[in-house]
Amino acid sequence: MVAQHTSREYELELREVRQRLLTMGGRAEQRLSQAMRALDRRDDALCCEVIEADDEIDRDEVEIDHMAQRILATRQPVAGDLRFIVMALKFVTDLERIGDLAANIAKRARELNRLPSAQIVDFGKLASQVQLSLRNALDSLAHDDADKATEVIERDKEIDKLNAAVFSELIARLASEPTLGNRVIPLTSVARSLERIGDHAKNLAEEVVFMVRGRDVRHGSGRER
Amino acid sequence: MVAQHTSREYELELREVRQRLLTMGGRAEQRLSQAMRALDRRDDALCCEVIEADDEIDRDEVEIDHMAQRILATRQPVAGDLRFIVMALKFVTDLERIGDLAANIAKRARELNRLPSAQIVDFGKLASQVQLSLRNALDSLAHDDADKATEVIERDKEIDKLNAAVFSELIARLASEPTLGNRVIPLTSVARSLERIGDHAKNLAEEVVFMVRGRDVRHGSGRER
Repeated sequence: MVAQHTSREYELELREVRQRLLTMGGRAEQRLSQAMRALDRRDDALCCEVIEADDEIDRDEVEIDHMAQRILATRQPVAGDLRFIVMALKFVTDLERIGDLAANIAKRARELNRLPSAQIVDFGKLASQVQLSLRNALDSLAHDDADKATEVIERDKEIDKLNAAVFSELIARLASEPTLGNRVIPLTSVARSLERIGDHAKNLAEEVVFMVRGRDVRHGSGRER
Repeated sequence: MVAQHTSREYELELREVRQRLLTMGGRAEQRLSQAMRALDRRDDALCCEVIEADDEIDRDEVEIDHMAQRILATRQPVAGDLRFIVMALKFVTDLERIGDLAANIAKRARELNRLPSAQIVDFGKLASQVQLSLRNALDSLAHDDADKATEVIERDKEIDKLNAAVFSELIARLASEPTLGNRVIPLTSVARSLERIGDHAKNLAEEVVFMVRGRDVRHGSGRER
């Protein structure tokens, strides 16, 4: 009876970590979409909201990390449970950085609001691809779906291409209109942040594949662990 | 006797993980300095060497990760040993990305070699600050030196400033000489890679402080774990 009780508690602890990861992921998604909306609508108040809300995601990281370490110390997980905890430790790091990068986009948007409006570049396509990757990476965790995670990994090259196109567009615009310089600098920073969020979404997906299949898909090796 | 024997083996396993992390870190450092030299000297052969050597760092990541997970599964580490293993799992991820970013710098350097030479921007100061941070982060791991790691964390703002200055310089040069566009694009990519390597060096330092002090220094909280 005692052992069963303990095992039930252990199950609940693991489930709580998963739930917290998904909640944290949802927050990161929300911050990203708010930051892009704030940029689009030149909305200073929304910029501030995103910047201030980053503390919440930072707290999530520390707390989930702590939970995972406590499980390692007290439950000595093995096999799939161990892979889940190792995944969780890496997952929170990527989610926290996504939060930082969303806050960075909001900071750049606020700078741009001090400057005259100008339709210099359209982030629409790039942003929606990045958001889709993040969404699908989180879904793949929610449903232990390694196939969905694999799609996210494969779509990363597409995001790199969209990002390169945005960069070329920015540089070309600047070359033809040198006075745009002060606006191009924050816009390149937004493009860099989106690119990095895409990278982190890919990392999340790789971590899910590792957890589900127990294989290492990094570096295209597919090696068994 | 048997218990002592096991405990001695366990010690050796932990020491091996530490040694492998330092070797991997040394490789990442070397790739970075080679990539910057290749960029500076327009050395195609050295570019290729850096790009091809990235596989080695990728293998390090998979192997060290595997070692750390095996220790978690078989030795059930607690307290300081557990913090060390958790640190190792995160450390390899940052080192692997530094390797990727060094390879990225080498790729951009190779593109620039196809274009006429032009002294558009000087990466010297930024690159040496980033290299110093990486060196000190690795030293702080080698000597369990949380003070040195804290210095790395504090120096990060300096790197951000140097990076912003390089970016402004690039944009200003482009605004005054629009024909430089095709060279400015790869150069901004080099600047972005250096900035990201600096971020990863800071992460490494945070992980060392966490391991040594058992505190969470992320987000300036200094919370006890």
